[in-house]
Amino acid sequence: MKRLEDIDAVLFDVGGTLVSEAPPGTPVAELRADPRPGAIETLRGLARHHRIAAVTDTSAMREAEVHELLEPVGLGGLLEAVVTSVDVGAAKPDPRPLTEALRRLGVEPGRAVYVGDAASDRDAAAAAGVGFAAVDRGIAEAIERFRRARSGPFAEACRGVRPLDDESAGAARAHHDRLTKPAGSLGRLEDLGVQLAAIAGQCPPPRPEPAAVAVFAGDHGVARAGVTPWPQEVTAQMVANFAAGGAAINVIARQVGASVQIVDAGVAADISQLQGVVRRNVRRGTADLSHGAAISVAEARAALDAGASIAADLVEDGNRLLVTGDMGIGNTTSSAALIAALTGREASAVTGRGTGIDDETLARKTRIVEGAAGRTRGWLDPVSILSEVGGLEIAALAGFIVGGVAERVPVLVDGVIAGAALLAAEAIAPGTAARCIAGHRSTEPGATAALEELDLAPVLDLALRLGEGTGACLAVPVVQAAANVLREMATFERAGVSERNVPRNP
Amino acid sequence: MKRLEDIDAVLFDVGGTLVSEAPPGTPVAELRADPRPGAIETLRGLARHHRIAAVTDTSAMREAEVHELLEPVGLGGLLEAVVTSVDVGAAKPDPRPLTEALRRLGVEPGRAVYVGDAASDRDAAAAAGVGFAAVDRGIAEAIERFRRARSGPFAEACRGVRPLDDESAGAARAHHDRLTKPAGSLGRLEDLGVQLAAIAGQCPPPRPEPAAVAVFAGDHGVARAGVTPWPQEVTAQMVANFAAGGAAINVIARQVGASVQIVDAGVAADISQLQGVVRRNVRRGTADLSHGAAISVAEARAALDAGASIAADLVEDGNRLLVTGDMGIGNTTSSAALIAALTGREASAVTGRGTGIDDETLARKTRIVEGAAGRTRGWLDPVSILSEVGGLEIAALAGFIVGGVAERVPVLVDGVIAGAALLAAEAIAPGTAARCIAGHRSTEPGATAALEELDLAPVLDLALRLGEGTGACLAVPVVQAAANVLREMATFERAGVSERNVPRNP
Repeated sequence: MKRLEDIDAVLFDVGGTLVSEAPPGTPVAELRADPRPGAIETLRGLARHHRIAAVTDTSAMREAEVHELLEPVGLGGLLEAVVTSVDVGAAKPDPRPLTEALRRLGVEPGRAVYVGDAASDRDAAAAAGVGFAAVDRGIAEAIERFRRARSGPFAEACRGVRPLDDESAGAARAHHDRLTKPAGSLGRLEDLGVQLAAIAGQCPPPRPEPAAVAVFAGDHGVARAGVTPWPQEVTAQMVANFAAGGAAINVIARQVGASVQIVDAGVAADISQLQGVVRRNVRRGTADLSHGAAISVAEARAALDAGASIAADLVEDGNRLLVTGDMGIGNTTSSAALIAALTGREASAVTGRGTGIDDETLARKTRIVEGAAGRTRGWLDPVSILSEVGGLEIAALAGFIVGGVAERVPVLVDGVIAGAALLAAEAIAPGTAARCIAGHRSTEPGATAALEELDLAPVLDLALRLGEGTGACLAVPVVQAAANVLREMATFERAGVSERNVPRNP
Repeated sequence: MKRLEDIDAVLFDVGGTLVSEAPPGTPVAELRADPRPGAIETLRGLARHHRIAAVTDTSAMREAEVHELLEPVGLGGLLEAVVTSVDVGAAKPDPRPLTEALRRLGVEPGRAVYVGDAASDRDAAAAAGVGFAAVDRGIAEAIERFRRARSGPFAEACRGVRPLDDESAGAARAHHDRLTKPAGSLGRLEDLGVQLAAIAGQCPPPRPEPAAVAVFAGDHGVARAGVTPWPQEVTAQMVANFAAGGAAINVIARQVGASVQIVDAGVAADISQLQGVVRRNVRRGTADLSHGAAISVAEARAALDAGASIAADLVEDGNRLLVTGDMGIGNTTSSAALIAALTGREASAVTGRGTGIDDETLARKTRIVEGAAGRTRGWLDPVSILSEVGGLEIAALAGFIVGGVAERVPVLVDGVIAGAALLAAEAIAPGTAARCIAGHRSTEPGATAALEELDLAPVLDLALRLGEGTGACLAVPVVQAAANVLREMATFERAGVSERNVPRNP
């Protein structure tokens, strides 16, 4: 096994990761180690280049007892250190057991990865500043996924997601109170201006223009499962319509002065001859997610990379506001499944009528969403979930969003497809959503579920359900006005306008 | 008394108009005529140039009996005909008694006016196509008001308010269903496009651009009654800020490509030296409406004329979308009073915190609104109500709105001040509101009350409460996009995009 780049230590959870989980309440004396498939081989391979240790929560055991348990099956000798919650006096998601293991190995958190199977493992790793690999589908796959996730444009973008700049936000709030208007009277426009300052790390924020809409197109195998009345060839036909400038997104983008970039992320038909379409076709449409994984993890990652690189290119070309767009017959089904999987909500609460379907079709669609999301229950790795129930344009959108965020430009997200992509993006790269602006509230129920989960309030609420980026694009002038108010309005002092008195009695 | 221009016949209601109302249930035998002040003199003056008749609802009397009753006080001889509800077998607001009177006089409805004191009189006149004069403040004043209301730019604009064109609306709906998108998927944008077609009488509708915002400024005597913490001089200072381009409306108008026209409709300070301000100052601020009428009916009419002529000028200059703007310290109080008076709602339900006031100030403001609106209870003439509790910039805005509507351009109305003005405009010239678009929902409660009363749904809801036209201006791109979608999007046929199938079973 090759060395993991920039990684010196690999830490492992024990129960459920290295060995099968014992039934709760098993007395310590009766515990027997049963290594999980591939565990010993993987550890042996890693041990050639890395320091290896285990970090585990137990009810009563200390290091020596865990070692004793793992010794007979050949795991004990591979572990340089074992830290238990009893040793440290703190259990995950508290980061202290991990921190203690690294202290003993003499390795920095940034050069370590923790391999685990539970949300508390993931959260402890995040709190300790350590990378995380989820053993959703086995330990070897987790290591391999972690290795791949560390290279390419998307991985680079993930490393570029930083917290909002509170100082610039505070400066924007203070500046707003000096402008010639009653404090707070511009409502949501003031909040947006503060967010733009926090995103850019500047007050006033830079003008979020020019704006560019990237419309990612992809096909969905599930379209053949009777979830939509539209034939699949419409995806390619609409891409041609985008390229010819005749679709709604073309008209609306022209209206607000935004450019339109059309990207083939996974259209089923061969549209490589079409002028004006950026070719990033990862695969000619997904598999039918009602029967199994929509795409492989590698394909999801390729789409994430495609999206991230498109965002970087658009910013490189001078764009300062990115807008998400999408096209794909069947993609409200994939989005609903992804939203159900990532939020834990019921399929019936997040599945809608999309382009307009009857009750029978809606019932079928909801069952498919329920089944697909159900397959991912308990999975921790968002890229695995994205590959199981998502789509190529959805993955590309997630990459695009993180890519824009990493470049510190505001990303204006459209409806339910973008909402699903943003949920995935936030799960992979926490902090992403805080740098995004929800352009509008789609009538699709999954859109509202995603916005609630991400704590985002939409700018517009115009009962749109078209996609393509139309709703977000209509919000472009509002976002630009929010920045310009901070940049261009006169202060009370400069304009010679009197400020308010304390209330008087007549 | 001079002849009423273009009027051949003046018809009068009897009880409450020519004579005092008898208590309900008074036996016919005990009825005595008690002419109302000025009634006989007014009728004598009118009789020199016009045909005079009476139209009255009674429980049992016929023409001869009403004549007999009015004869002793000198009214009988002045009336060429008397038509009662018993004679006709129909009571107001049914138009038949009026139609019968005109038939007997041989006069066309368009050349007659009906003078009455009740809402049923007004409604019967409207149904018969006859002018109406309300005797809110006496019969002579009603005739004089009617005479004045028939000349000038505002009167002309009122005559230009026509019903929406249903045929163009239907054509727009049908065209929307042919465009390359699922039917109805552009939600509110489709409704706006249909409305624009109905306003213009064309499908597709013309581009609603360029857009022009007219910001009407005026001062309010009630500002001295402790309803606002802002000193009155801020109105003039903000007008200077508008002229210098430093206010929120300047920034937002620039963002959406709209021009800004600043109009002094009634600022208290002398700002005639200020460059870039259109001078239409009717009066240097209103009187304090907490003590009596804010302005005279003549002043209200002058402001209505000013607004209507500004609208006509802007359309003459090539503008195709008009946006309302306002500035006036104290004007949320006047607007709340006008909204309460015109909708019959409680003062507490329509009075808000405006620029941000404390509980004590809000209580005082609400009492003032209640008192002012209460003085107009039972009044029928909206111009009288507007003069009693309104303001100069509010009257000018009402004139501006009707002026734009008469020119068949869409008028985009801002928040609570414009909402009050639109209520007045609709009361004076019914059909006006159907040709307006509510730009946003102000947080002022009166704004929502006005929108509900007018059955208008706002385009934006961004918690703005600044005024100046800022909210409406932010909606400009949405309105323009609604027209452009109908003008520029490809149809399924032209783009070669397949239409939806009937739902399939998998």
